[in-house]
Amino acid sequence: MSLLVVGSIGLDEVETPRARRSDLLGGSAVYFSVAARFFSPVQIVGVVGDDFPPEYRRLLEERGIDTRGLEVARGKTFRWSGRYHANMVDRDTLRTDLNVFAEFDPKLPPEYRSADHVFLANGVTALQLKVLDLLERRPKFVAADTMDLWIRTTRPDLEKLLRRIDALVLNDSEARMLTGDHELLKAGRAIQRMGPPTVILKKGEHGAMLLSRDDCFILPAYPLEEVVDPTGAGDSFAGGLMGCLAASGDRSADSLRRALLYGTVAASFTCQGFSLDGLLNADRRAIDARCEEFRRMLSLPR
Amino acid sequence: MSLLVVGSIGLDEVETPRARRSDLLGGSAVYFSVAARFFSPVQIVGVVGDDFPPEYRRLLEERGIDTRGLEVARGKTFRWSGRYHANMVDRDTLRTDLNVFAEFDPKLPPEYRSADHVFLANGVTALQLKVLDLLERRPKFVAADTMDLWIRTTRPDLEKLLRRIDALVLNDSEARMLTGDHELLKAGRAIQRMGPPTVILKKGEHGAMLLSRDDCFILPAYPLEEVVDPTGAGDSFAGGLMGCLAASGDRSADSLRRALLYGTVAASFTCQGFSLDGLLNADRRAIDARCEEFRRMLSLPR
Repeated sequence: MSLLVVGSIGLDEVETPRARRSDLLGGSAVYFSVAARFFSPVQIVGVVGDDFPPEYRRLLEERGIDTRGLEVARGKTFRWSGRYHANMVDRDTLRTDLNVFAEFDPKLPPEYRSADHVFLANGVTALQLKVLDLLERRPKFVAADTMDLWIRTTRPDLEKLLRRIDALVLNDSEARMLTGDHELLKAGRAIQRMGPPTVILKKGEHGAMLLSRDDCFILPAYPLEEVVDPTGAGDSFAGGLMGCLAASGDRSADSLRRALLYGTVAASFTCQGFSLDGLLNADRRAIDARCEEFRRMLSLPR
Repeated sequence: MSLLVVGSIGLDEVETPRARRSDLLGGSAVYFSVAARFFSPVQIVGVVGDDFPPEYRRLLEERGIDTRGLEVARGKTFRWSGRYHANMVDRDTLRTDLNVFAEFDPKLPPEYRSADHVFLANGVTALQLKVLDLLERRPKFVAADTMDLWIRTTRPDLEKLLRRIDALVLNDSEARMLTGDHELLKAGRAIQRMGPPTVILKKGEHGAMLLSRDDCFILPAYPLEEVVDPTGAGDSFAGGLMGCLAASGDRSADSLRRALLYGTVAASFTCQGFSLDGLLNADRRAIDARCEEFRRMLSLPR
C-alpha cells in the first residue's frame, strides 16, 4: 500500500558534548521516509531551496524514496540548529530558519493523490490541513505529528486537524501542553476526545504509549549504551510505525502494537549516529534482529 | 522462606498540589514490609521513638508483619517532610530529622538471624553492613537500596557493601551519580562490575530495568490516571519484588522478571493514596488482577 509523508526537509547543525556537525541532512519528512522505506514504498512531499546539496536528493532517491513531490524553490533550505545537554536528552534550539518552508504551498503529483496511508509530519497546521484537502479520496489511515509551537499559535487549526485524522503522534510534554493533564494516560484519553481514535505518545528515552479505542499498550525504548545524536528519533519512530502499517495494510490493535515495536527499533538506530548515519548503517535484517533481541528484553514469563 | 528487612520507620509530612497531610506512617522498611506481606512473611528491623503512635505498630502487626525486631528508643521517631511539584514526580525534601534513627544500633532477634532473603532498605551504609554481620549464615539472596546522600558521604562503606550483596536496587539518578554514566544500561553494567551480579534500576513513572549476568529486562510502570502521593513507591516496589522472590524461593531470570512485575504493581497501588492508604486498600486479588491487566498492556503479538 502507498505511504505519503509531508514535512520538513532541512539542513541541521547539531552540537553534542562530544562533537559538532553542520550541514547535516535532516527534517521530519527525511527521517520519516528513510525509516519507513525499510518496510514500504514512500512518497515524500516537501520543499528545499536551490542551495540543497544534490547528493542529499540522490541519497533519498537511492533509498528508493519517491521524490516527485520534492519541490525546489528559489531561496534557502530550511535550517535548524540545536545543542544537546550532557544527558543527551534535553536540548536547546539555537536557531530555526524556516526559509523556503515558510511559504511552502504543497502540491501533490497525481500519483500521490490516492495514497492509502498519510503522515503529516511536524509542520504548520494549515499546511497539514491543505495536504488532506488535496487528496482525491479519504486515505485508510492518516496520522499527524505536531509540536509546542503549533499548539500555542494555531490551536483552532489544530482542533480542525484532530477531527480529520486517525492518529496523533506526539511527545509527552506536548500532550501535557495540549490537554493540561500531567498523567499521560489522562492526557491521551483527553486527546482522543478531541478527535483521533488513536493517540501515540512518545516519551523519548522512556518509550511510547499507544491508546486506541479499546487498547492501551506501553513499550519502553530500546536501551542503548551510547546515544550519539537523538535528532530525528521521533520522526524515525513514526516512519517505522507507518511503514509497517502500510506494509501490512492492517490497522488492528495487534498490527499497531507490532508497528510501535518496529518504530522504536528504527528510532534506536537513528540515535546511534549523527543525522541519518545510524539508520543508513542499518538494513532490514539488522532491524529484525534487534526486534527479536528487544522482544526477549520485554518478555514476561507466566 | 523468610524475608528480613532493615530500614527506616518514620512519621512523614507530605504536601502535594492538592493536599497536605502530616504524622503519616512512613519509612522505607514500612512500605517495604506492607508490600512484601502480600506475598511472604516479613520480619522488620528498625527503631522508633517513644512518641511512635501505638496504632501504627498495631497496623503492622495486624498485617502479619513480625515486629519483634522493632526497637523503641527514648527520643523522637525519624521524621521526613517533602513537597511534590505539580508533575507529582519532582519533590523537595523540606526536612529530614533522623532522631533515634541516627544512633540506631541494630540487634537481630534470634529468629531473624537465619533469614533466607534480606533487604537492606535505604539507610546509613554502616548500618546495612552491620546487619549482614549479625546474620548467622549467608542468606540465599541479599538486596540493598541506597541514595545520593550515602553515595556522596559513605563511598568506601558502599563499595564494601556492593561486594557483599546479590542485588542493588536504586534510582536511575543515583545510578548515574554512582557511576558517572548517563545511559542506564552502561551505568547498570558498571555497577555490576562493582560487585552485585544483579542491578535493578528504578525509573519512577518510567518503570524499571533489571540487569543480571545474562539477562536484561525492561518493564514500564503501570500507568495511572491520577497519582495521589508517590512517597514510598520505590520501597513498595522493592517489597513486592523481594516478597515474590522469597515466596517462590527461586532466583532464576524468569522468577526475577515476575518479581519485578509484582513490585511494579505494588508500587502503583502505593501511588494511589497518601501514606499506606493505597496499599492497604489493595488485597492479593486486586494485585493479581492488576498484574493480568498490565500483562495485556505489555503484550507484544508475533
